[in-house]
Amino acid sequence: MSVRLIDKYAHEFIEKDALAAMEERLIKADAMLKARSEENDYKGWYDLPLNYDTEELAAIERAAEKIRTESDVLIVIGIGGSYLGARAAIEFLRSRYYNIQKKDTPEIYFVGNSFSGDDLDDVLALCEGKEVSVNVISKSGTTTESSIAFRMVRHMMLKKYTNSEIKERVFVTTDKERGALKAFADREGYNTFVIPDDVGGRFSVLTAVGLLPIAVCGADVRAMLRGAANMRRRIDAEGMKNDAYRYAVLRNLFYEQGKCVEILGSYEPSFRMMNEWWKQLFGESEGKDGKGIFPASVIFSADLHSLGQYIQDGKRVLFETIVKQKQVRKDMFIPSNAVDIDGLGFLSGVKMSSVNDEAMIGTLLAHTAGGVPNLIVEYDKRDEENLGELIYFFFIACAVSGYILGVNPFDQPGVEAYKRNMYALLGKPGYEELKEELLTKIHAL
Amino acid sequence: MSVRLIDKYAHEFIEKDALAAMEERLIKADAMLKARSEENDYKGWYDLPLNYDTEELAAIERAAEKIRTESDVLIVIGIGGSYLGARAAIEFLRSRYYNIQKKDTPEIYFVGNSFSGDDLDDVLALCEGKEVSVNVISKSGTTTESSIAFRMVRHMMLKKYTNSEIKERVFVTTDKERGALKAFADREGYNTFVIPDDVGGRFSVLTAVGLLPIAVCGADVRAMLRGAANMRRRIDAEGMKNDAYRYAVLRNLFYEQGKCVEILGSYEPSFRMMNEWWKQLFGESEGKDGKGIFPASVIFSADLHSLGQYIQDGKRVLFETIVKQKQVRKDMFIPSNAVDIDGLGFLSGVKMSSVNDEAMIGTLLAHTAGGVPNLIVEYDKRDEENLGELIYFFFIACAVSGYILGVNPFDQPGVEAYKRNMYALLGKPGYEELKEELLTKIHAL
Repeated sequence: MSVRLIDKYAHEFIEKDALAAMEERLIKADAMLKARSEENDYKGWYDLPLNYDTEELAAIERAAEKIRTESDVLIVIGIGGSYLGARAAIEFLRSRYYNIQKKDTPEIYFVGNSFSGDDLDDVLALCEGKEVSVNVISKSGTTTESSIAFRMVRHMMLKKYTNSEIKERVFVTTDKERGALKAFADREGYNTFVIPDDVGGRFSVLTAVGLLPIAVCGADVRAMLRGAANMRRRIDAEGMKNDAYRYAVLRNLFYEQGKCVEILGSYEPSFRMMNEWWKQLFGESEGKDGKGIFPASVIFSADLHSLGQYIQDGKRVLFETIVKQKQVRKDMFIPSNAVDIDGLGFLSGVKMSSVNDEAMIGTLLAHTAGGVPNLIVEYDKRDEENLGELIYFFFIACAVSGYILGVNPFDQPGVEAYKRNMYALLGKPGYEELKEELLTKIHAL
Repeated sequence: MSVRLIDKYAHEFIEKDALAAMEERLIKADAMLKARSEENDYKGWYDLPLNYDTEELAAIERAAEKIRTESDVLIVIGIGGSYLGARAAIEFLRSRYYNIQKKDTPEIYFVGNSFSGDDLDDVLALCEGKEVSVNVISKSGTTTESSIAFRMVRHMMLKKYTNSEIKERVFVTTDKERGALKAFADREGYNTFVIPDDVGGRFSVLTAVGLLPIAVCGADVRAMLRGAANMRRRIDAEGMKNDAYRYAVLRNLFYEQGKCVEILGSYEPSFRMMNEWWKQLFGESEGKDGKGIFPASVIFSADLHSLGQYIQDGKRVLFETIVKQKQVRKDMFIPSNAVDIDGLGFLSGVKMSSVNDEAMIGTLLAHTAGGVPNLIVEYDKRDEENLGELIYFFFIACAVSGYILGVNPFDQPGVEAYKRNMYALLGKPGYEELKEELLTKIHAL
């Protein structure tokens, strides 16, 4: 057993009656999760770790090996679910300093996740004089951010390589058969990988979307899938009492107590992008119909010296979920000083991991005493199997939590609003009427 | 005129009566900001850009020059205000890729802002074979995170250099005369810089705390101070109608409408750490007495594909402040494709900056239509003078906003709670009673 929920620090916030009242909603949510529909219900992620396409997986590993051998840099083009999961996994498994560390695997840069020319230019400059491969990730091939970046990156590649060389260096992750990008890739003869129809972006890190870039950093992606499968089996075995369901129930309980912000926190800086991945997963799944817990994040203890004051004493609309790492990679003993200049003599010879652990417990006690419920999600260590467990744990918790809240956790209708406005303002054919409407609105302000 | 507030997109959320009712509170807040007390009222940041210690500034520039000349790496040890401002400024002025870019200035790593041994070990490994200087920043010299890191880093330095070499490589930013670190620095003969008594951590980026590391990346710190001074003069000239006050008033107005989360957003990825700096400034200043706006942040358009759904359609407890950059550094034209594979043919030849601007306007209109008030804080470009203006704009807005809210924006009593618990659990002498109390509590859970 690895990933687990610890809720003992939150007991004072859990009223038995309220918990019992949740029971019925949980049973319904469980049934909704397990129901299968004729239409695409975007639940492909659910069984995926149990019956992964092994040919696709082998192809991913071969492509990753080829990229590692032939390139100094991998540019990954994608946004949202086609960006956050892979980046989060690489920083979690390697380090937030991955790109700058000595290693025998390529630097990995993520572009196409903004419209900033300054930022894209920075990355293109980093590629100068280096061998480059590209992984472009888009279901439709028409996502504006990633399409623009792909145009720019292809432009650079065309200056650097011949067409037949480019064919060996561009890897496309997209729809199985439809879409602009698939057609283009086939015509150009690029290697393609599949984004399954029934897996939405924020649930896609265990498909080729995430696994190809993750494999390029040298990680064992089979172990990630194994971890996810283990978590699935545990959840099945534990039934309604499993930890992911319990997490889903408790966060809804806090939400009903008026806690509309959940802070996910970690004491490991390399967890930062996992926080971002989690924010998309929960925010996009639950933030709809005027409802939902707003997902925020912190890295402690840095942010105890930043948001700590607010968490301790500010408006009581918060609860926290601390993702706790049990074993560190390299422990260090705090050296003693000849003179106790810093007053920390009592820590000489103590392991840093012990200080980190006590800081966490001390903080938990302080924040709960301040009226902030605290949950812990614990994993053993930073490795692929734990990561797979953690990811699948959050998938299940998120789906069930959304159903308990009373929303469809698998759609994202609100994401279109800014896109439509942007298309109109940029003069995309077909948006003429909206353009006029928006311009009239702007001029009236 | 550079940094300015644009509130026209929020007009529909601003009721005239409510605004008028704020007037009196603003007048009081202004008076409180300008009042001087016999005791230390932590308002040293207010006049600082107008009468900076020029000798100290020259010494900072000399030290930065020395570090640039003699070192490949600068390790900055500090937490909270002794960390966020400098890192934010360097990423804003240079790039989020600063440490990996080709340059003739040192890599700059920030440690002592967590208890993670894995993370510290990563940075120590990055220093192997390189010439290293260290800037340790702590008012008291007893902050646990930075003291532990300083012990570790000194340990490394002692292996690498002789004592007389270390003297040339360690720069200490601390209290003028008191404190453990000052005493130690004097004994060892380290160069010291001053954290003024009347400037709190989150208001310290324009003192040696921020300016020394910022100067090491080659930035013109005098221009930063000039920008801050310009902003101060504009605020004085504009009196009660100035933009910083207006921002302070409007955010309190939204707060009273039930918007308890403010999202600071930028469309430039290199603004990310500025977001973090802003979160400390506002969160720590306002989050007290059970009150305050919870500060969150996003980088768009990445986070439109992550938190965008929630912002558009989730629980209506949000407002947004978009920090808008007017001019980009390097604009790029979107290349045309022979075949219009991505359906973006209408964007061929369009500047990326135009797309970014229209994405912003489109998003503003979408989010306000969804019930989320949006403000814009605009600056001209990424340079030192604009950065100084922006920083000082937020300083003033934060102080006045806190006074309007009815809190003391310059204290942070809640930060001590976790520290006391942590000391007790770690067995610090003098905390025996609390330790027993906490252990009893834990065992009863």
